[in-house]
Amino acid sequence: MAVELYRQLIQQLLSQRAKQANHPQWSEYEVQTLFDTERDHYQLLHVGWRDTKRAFGCLLHLDIKDGKIWIQHDGTETGIANHLVAFGVPKQDIVLAFHEPQVRQFTDFGVGSKV
Amino acid sequence: MAVELYRQLIQQLLSQRAKQANHPQWSEYEVQTLFDTERDHYQLLHVGWRDTKRAFGCLLHLDIKDGKIWIQHDGTETGIANHLVAFGVPKQDIVLAFHEPQVRQFTDFGVGSKV
Repeated sequence: MAVELYRQLIQQLLSQRAKQANHPQWSEYEVQTLFDTERDHYQLLHVGWRDTKRAFGCLLHLDIKDGKIWIQHDGTETGIANHLVAFGVPKQDIVLAFHEPQVRQFTDFGVGSKV
Repeated sequence: MAVELYRQLIQQLLSQRAKQANHPQWSEYEVQTLFDTERDHYQLLHVGWRDTKRAFGCLLHLDIKDGKIWIQHDGTETGIANHLVAFGVPKQDIVLAFHEPQVRQFTDFGVGSKV
């Protein structure tokens, strides 16, 4: 699959989640999408204040490197990798980067470029 | 100061830090800059593996909202706010968003748009 398709798919999935997750009842709370298409970094994070409670944390962080989608962080229950596969991304084009490089070969997913 | 100047300054400061912080001895470790100039979110984070140790964390996260620079997260020792002031950004244009909205009025910095 072409990298440009991956870019579009990632932005679509993250934008959808951001919309679902926004809570307009707190004026200074938001779920942000960070799309850096030049460097191919994509992030979903929540930030702000829920009353007197600070929120700041990354929910999803994906990169595209050497034509593959690297999942650097996934704080979702369903797993973004499953969504990517459902959309037709071959498992070998998905790197579960949160797993140690040496153990990735024992999964169905990609091992990354450097191992 | 114009927002476009703020955009340039933030990207310059974060890029400099990213360069200083990169450690080429680990093949799968990097300090990334995420610049989303469309939504005005700017982040510096480290991600990857240092041998068998996972690294993933945000060092700096800044937004531009309503013409002001919101510091959402600052994990640096010197404080990015000090650097911004040194470059001529008025304190009232800097919001220390990690402080509760109600207490910001007791600092020299901006209070944000919603209080």
